[in-house]
Amino acid sequence: MFYSDGKLQYPVRVDNPDPLFARALQQAIGGVEGEIRVAMQYFFQAMGARGPKKYRDMLLNTATEELGHIEMLATAVALNLEGAPSSLTDEAARDQVVNAALGGMNLKHLLSSGLAAMPVDADGVPFDMSHIYASGNIAADMTANVTAESTGRVLAVRLYNLTEDAGMKDMLQFLIARDTMHQNQRLAAFEELGGHEKAFPIPNSHAQSEEAQKFSYAYFGHLVDQPVPEGRWTAGKSIDGKGEFTTLNSEPMGEEPKLAPARPGSGAQESQMKSTP
Amino acid sequence: MFYSDGKLQYPVRVDNPDPLFARALQQAIGGVEGEIRVAMQYFFQAMGARGPKKYRDMLLNTATEELGHIEMLATAVALNLEGAPSSLTDEAARDQVVNAALGGMNLKHLLSSGLAAMPVDADGVPFDMSHIYASGNIAADMTANVTAESTGRVLAVRLYNLTEDAGMKDMLQFLIARDTMHQNQRLAAFEELGGHEKAFPIPNSHAQSEEAQKFSYAYFGHLVDQPVPEGRWTAGKSIDGKGEFTTLNSEPMGEEPKLAPARPGSGAQESQMKSTP
Amino acid sequence: MFYSDGKLQYPVRVDNPDPLFARALQQAIGGVEGEIRVAMQYFFQAMGARGPKKYRDMLLNTATEELGHIEMLATAVALNLEGAPSSLTDEAARDQVVNAALGGMNLKHLLSSGLAAMPVDADGVPFDMSHIYASGNIAADMTANVTAESTGRVLAVRLYNLTEDAGMKDMLQFLIARDTMHQNQRLAAFEELGGHEKAFPIPNSHAQSEEAQKFSYAYFGHLVDQPVPEGRWTAGKSIDGKGEFTTLNSEPMGEEPKLAPARPGSGAQESQMKSTP
Amino acid sequence: MFYSDGKLQYPVRVDNPDPLFARALQQAIGGVEGEIRVAMQYFFQAMGARGPKKYRDMLLNTATEELGHIEMLATAVALNLEGAPSSLTDEAARDQVVNAALGGMNLKHLLSSGLAAMPVDADGVPFDMSHIYASGNIAADMTANVTAESTGRVLAVRLYNLTEDAGMKDMLQFLIARDTMHQNQRLAAFEELGGHEKAFPIPNSHAQSEEAQKFSYAYFGHLVDQPVPEGRWTAGKSIDGKGEFTTLNSEPMGEEPKLAPARPGSGAQESQMKSTP
Amino acid sequence: MFYSDGKLQYPVRVDNPDPLFARALQQAIGGVEGEIRVAMQYFFQAMGARGPKKYRDMLLNTATEELGHIEMLATAVALNLEGAPSSLTDEAARDQVVNAALGGMNLKHLLSSGLAAMPVDADGVPFDMSHIYASGNIAADMTANVTAESTGRVLAVRLYNLTEDAGMKDMLQFLIARDTMHQNQRLAAFEELGGHEKAFPIPNSHAQSEEAQKFSYAYFGHLVDQPVPEGRWTAGKSIDGKGEFTTLNSEPMGEEPKLAPARPGSGAQESQMKSTP
Amino acid sequence: MFYSDGKLQYPVRVDNPDPLFARALQQAIGGVEGEIRVAMQYFFQAMGARGPKKYRDMLLNTATEELGHIEMLATAVALNLEGAPSSLTDEAARDQVVNAALGGMNLKHLLSSGLAAMPVDADGVPFDMSHIYASGNIAADMTANVTAESTGRVLAVRLYNLTEDAGMKDMLQFLIARDTMHQNQRLAAFEELGGHEKAFPIPNSHAQSEEAQKFSYAYFGHLVDQPVPEGRWTAGKSIDGKGEFTTLNSEPMGEEPKLAPARPGSGAQESQMKSTP
Repeated sequence: MFYSDGKLQYPVRVDNPDPLFARALQQAIGGVEGEIRVAMQYFFQAMGARGPKKYRDMLLNTATEELGHIEMLATAVALNLEGAPSSLTDEAARDQVVNAALGGMNLKHLLSSGLAAMPVDADGVPFDMSHIYASGNIAADMTANVTAESTGRVLAVRLYNLTEDAGMKDMLQFLIARDTMHQNQRLAAFEELGGHEKAFPIPNSHAQSEEAQKFSYAYFGHLVDQPVPEGRWTAGKSIDGKGEFTTLNSEPMGEEPKLAPARPGSGAQESQMKSTP
Repeated sequence: MFYSDGKLQYPVRVDNPDPLFARALQQAIGGVEGEIRVAMQYFFQAMGARGPKKYRDMLLNTATEELGHIEMLATAVALNLEGAPSSLTDEAARDQVVNAALGGMNLKHLLSSGLAAMPVDADGVPFDMSHIYASGNIAADMTANVTAESTGRVLAVRLYNLTEDAGMKDMLQFLIARDTMHQNQRLAAFEELGGHEKAFPIPNSHAQSEEAQKFSYAYFGHLVDQPVPEGRWTAGKSIDGKGEFTTLNSEPMGEEPKLAPARPGSGAQESQMKSTP
Repeated sequence: MFYSDGKLQYPVRVDNPDPLFARALQQAIGGVEGEIRVAMQYFFQAMGARGPKKYRDMLLNTATEELGHIEMLATAVALNLEGAPSSLTDEAARDQVVNAALGGMNLKHLLSSGLAAMPVDADGVPFDMSHIYASGNIAADMTANVTAESTGRVLAVRLYNLTEDAGMKDMLQFLIARDTMHQNQRLAAFEELGGHEKAFPIPNSHAQSEEAQKFSYAYFGHLVDQPVPEGRWTAGKSIDGKGEFTTLNSEPMGEEPKLAPARPGSGAQESQMKSTP
Repeated sequence: MFYSDGKLQYPVRVDNPDPLFARALQQAIGGVEGEIRVAMQYFFQAMGARGPKKYRDMLLNTATEELGHIEMLATAVALNLEGAPSSLTDEAARDQVVNAALGGMNLKHLLSSGLAAMPVDADGVPFDMSHIYASGNIAADMTANVTAESTGRVLAVRLYNLTEDAGMKDMLQFLIARDTMHQNQRLAAFEELGGHEKAFPIPNSHAQSEEAQKFSYAYFGHLVDQPVPEGRWTAGKSIDGKGEFTTLNSEPMGEEPKLAPARPGSGAQESQMKSTP
Repeated sequence: MFYSDGKLQYPVRVDNPDPLFARALQQAIGGVEGEIRVAMQYFFQAMGARGPKKYRDMLLNTATEELGHIEMLATAVALNLEGAPSSLTDEAARDQVVNAALGGMNLKHLLSSGLAAMPVDADGVPFDMSHIYASGNIAADMTANVTAESTGRVLAVRLYNLTEDAGMKDMLQFLIARDTMHQNQRLAAFEELGGHEKAFPIPNSHAQSEEAQKFSYAYFGHLVDQPVPEGRWTAGKSIDGKGEFTTLNSEPMGEEPKLAPARPGSGAQESQMKSTP
Repeated sequence: MFYSDGKLQYPVRVDNPDPLFARALQQAIGGVEGEIRVAMQYFFQAMGARGPKKYRDMLLNTATEELGHIEMLATAVALNLEGAPSSLTDEAARDQVVNAALGGMNLKHLLSSGLAAMPVDADGVPFDMSHIYASGNIAADMTANVTAESTGRVLAVRLYNLTEDAGMKDMLQFLIARDTMHQNQRLAAFEELGGHEKAFPIPNSHAQSEEAQKFSYAYFGHLVDQPVPEGRWTAGKSIDGKGEFTTLNSEPMGEEPKLAPARPGSGAQESQMKSTP
């Protein structure tokens, strides 16, 4: 069960409202790198967490923190929209100094939400919950969480560089720091899961004797007319400690597929119903 | 530029066509853990790769391999659909031994594709290219690739366990092995990027002195009425080697947000246009 | 069956074509508050209407009117796009007086539709038919229709305030008036359905004796550290006339969920397969 | 800021796990009538609420409660999935008594989430956040909330009727009761907003003198060859108290639209570039 | 403006209601080959038709007919759903003779629409209006319409073969016939547009002298290790009458792309900011 | 299986980087007329091609070429983004001569991809794989391919007209030429399939004797109060050579639909459960 106190985790202050920055901030709310994604991802991972309770607790705990980040960002969007132009003849609408020019702001902020945040990205595309990765495998989920916090911090840094507003910079400093923690936190979970050599390959519960092991550590070259370029991934011990990297030029091991002719009554053309040379 | 030889990277054989397994295989084509995702993700990451050419080459190379995996799986779907029922009175339609019962197969395989693979998941939901994570930050991209290959191998293992068809098991053994390699390959790229202590926090080009450092390694507790449970993430050196994990109970540092009253002419109710106590 | 006469329900005149206003008008076509939504919603509600025929007739009738509103708005978009810039060096492309600046218009109007309306919103996001609410419960459907006409009129008013074009203002005056009627019409349907005390709670065919009645009229407080703020919803007779509003501070009545360990062969990590303390 | 205690608002008990019912319950999580929708809708409405603080408080409060409902339902899904078949030869896979037959369950529960809830509907379609209606007009928002709670209670009643599991019925009794309260709560908000005569037409801040008033209370007949059927909406005082309902047969007031010929260089066919008779 | 008479264009009769066939019919309503698509596609093409009025008239006319086809199919779905099981213990739920088994029907027909049609496909995926192709080029639009009617007739034939219900077969016979007409009608439009030699390449208003003409009629071979297989497209006069088909093995004419290093402050890793060998 | 050489099929040169043109080019990558669509469409058609191998070969071959077109366009986007503004105070951000003004560029190019191409359209809407038309009927597929290449060439011409950059114009000349070839190639396939008289109506495997033949070549008039306008489609031999075009005014042949009352326990209102007059 959840509780709220209606207060913000960290102060949100906008010194110079800027509707274009409001649009940019939407990416951190409803973008695939945004806060709805992490809040809901950790929540659904917690809901399906089977096994040691400590992972469930950590996931639910951080999901709860992230809800407060959506709250901070939604407040920041609403404050940045105060002062936006509301008609095409409004003098703010074409102001070259203010970024508020109507052409650049998200028109749905004006037409749909009445100058408030929406669960959409910087282009007004609604967040789609298929981006909630919760696989039921706790290690795979942790990789998804490192991804979420890494792309999230990249985004926050870009927003920080985009604005000159001191209030917004202060808020973003806080969010960047939290992403630093959350990246580390998910990497720490990996250590608790046994580190690379125990946790990988994911899932570690599948006996490797059942996979086609001669291809398990081979780098296949598909770039024609050139030698396979060297990298850590072409030679040496594999990171999971269970093999040696090798390289080979890829050759087809299978034939061209042969499908049966189309079945009568299946809505094909007549000529498709014959066997073909 | 690309080339094809029309042959399969690895043989695809279906001993007992099973339309329900065809539906399950769709998850590996058009699901968020599937092969369209990895092929297109590595391709777009390669297209935007700035900096050392070796990452671009590796990404393009593996994208090219993954195109061949879609080809294998699409062939497997088409072969599994041979023998599916095509009318409600077809005796196969309600066969309790064959899994081909009409109710369980994806009706679009019958109605839309004419017994062939589609770029959709196991529920017939089309793949949405917003799942292509290509951030322009090579380290963040590698975290996304570890995720893709981890959830991909989890899926392949589940498919392997689901079927008893020897041909399908053989194909899946190969794909599982390739996912083992690709997980290792992306982890190896991390070593080349400097390992956890050099690559993290991502992006490593943002001066940490600009973030709110006192929150950078603190685990905030949001679970009320209980002590913060201990884990690798609550104490000890942070994984990026730049701080010490601590814990604290989360308290709001900000106030309740105060938005301005609604603006005249903004489509609100009249009562919203007054300042509120 | 349907008929058309190709004429417009109400005159559509654009005095000063404005591609940015064309983009704004798209919200009234393909936005979630737009006319495709109401036309299709009333149509599908009519198609599934079981019970008194008068509701089906009213729904089909108004669906038919709304098709004509899409027609009017699509015409308005096409007329507003006449005169849009078509190249980056076109002098209109950067004109600061005309709103036609390329940066602000929807580029798909130029690239995809050839200067015509599309079934998308103001950000170019296509309308998604999941927004057609047709529940099979005629009262629930009427609540959805009040919502559609209320958000629709809010949008029309915002568009009216946005433009200075006399032709467009005239058209919007008409559409605003129709939304006034349609709001009233759906509220009137509620009276015919018995008013609040007979129609609510929806569905009224479920015996309230089967619900957990002690929670049916209680306002649970989830805001910590503050008294529950008073409102019409915290005390007094409930609007459906069947209870008395009360308040209580929410406390968990259930325990922490306990899921079984992960099953062998289910693609989890090994450590998830043990029971956990 | 948010807090959690990890406990459930109300006990969730599953006596006979049923994967098909797990699939049905998904509609109450990720369907358009589901709990993600209400939680996020009230949250975003609260974030953008301008004007009297009591509405913001009520919205945030109930959003917080609804987060706990997702938690209850996600737990119910995970429990219902325990015992699902995991291979095509598993004897549970074709059991005619248990509903667990593989064909009927959501395969993504097996393949994607590892036997846990997902933010998708009963057909596996992910929830799309465009369904979060938050218009910035508090009255329009309340109409959307009545809709959400009405369709939500209709769904809960259908789920209640679908299952025979005593544990599930008990949980649904609770959720049905909460929907009763929330319907009443939003209707109560309308009284506080002034009731039908003060709040309608929405938005009430637009001067009706600017709309085309002769069409504001007229029911247009578009059904040919039949008299306009009578209803509360064809005669008598309008519900907003500001007009009298009338009826008239719809006739086009506008002409056929005339668009300009296609512009040279606009990608049209040559024949489209001439004026047409 | 539109009118309706509430009657069906052609009789719709269901002799043996079948919820699984209801699910299949949804593909013809909300599938990409379905009737919403053609109705809305012709409508939006008509709205943007510039040039000769006869095309606009034809498009609007046929759009109007197609609205009536959605009406017929939606009625067919509602009738097929009468008799569906509504609880998991309902004896119809597991009936092996009736196709109504709960596992096979679309659960949203039960949970969301109350036994009525929805604007979704056979898997419950909502129709997405991005499938409305209306390019502003009348010839390109006609190609899209031939496609729509061809895939539509393929679907109708498959549905016809799927069912044994005489009423449904009769309705589908009618719809198949109409698709025959509409295919011919769009091909006839091509003749009116000048036939292949005048209308192609589309758009015919672009001077071919500006395209890279030496590649305009060449079939590039990308299949390695095999001669280019012969077909009508490898030799002989081109269909537009403006060239001769030739073949050549594809070779890259461009170099490897060279992107600039990542910009400081752009959120990349430090190592990406250097020029690379 | 696939191979790549990392080189471009045709040189890509950008003389004057322009972030707004980068946004426009996205339509040719991830728009419904774009290259992802053709590459994937031909690929999936090839995968499901039953019948003569030559169609499969042609489809796979051209799919492979189109992958190289995505590569060219993605490179063009990345090059056009070099020099984009990265902060709101960056002087390029409001430059009226350069098109790089922040308001007009796609903010996700800055925030999400780090100045690289994404699989989205010009409005940032991600490509949705439901646009891959692969019906299993080779003739229907060819109609879809003519559509794809026609709308694709219309788009390429519009992009060509939009830019003044000589490098970009050169690249587009090449792509326009390839679209010319691909239109012709698909039309040529039709000849090989027997031409209009043998291939139509699609599917040609359905006996026309089973369709309602008296409606197979009739143009129904739904435009009231006007004679049916004449066209090639109203009289003369049908294009498939199997009938004569006729016209008739559409009249309903069916009655008003009569649905059964709502079932008890189905979540309807009580008043819906009675038979209605």
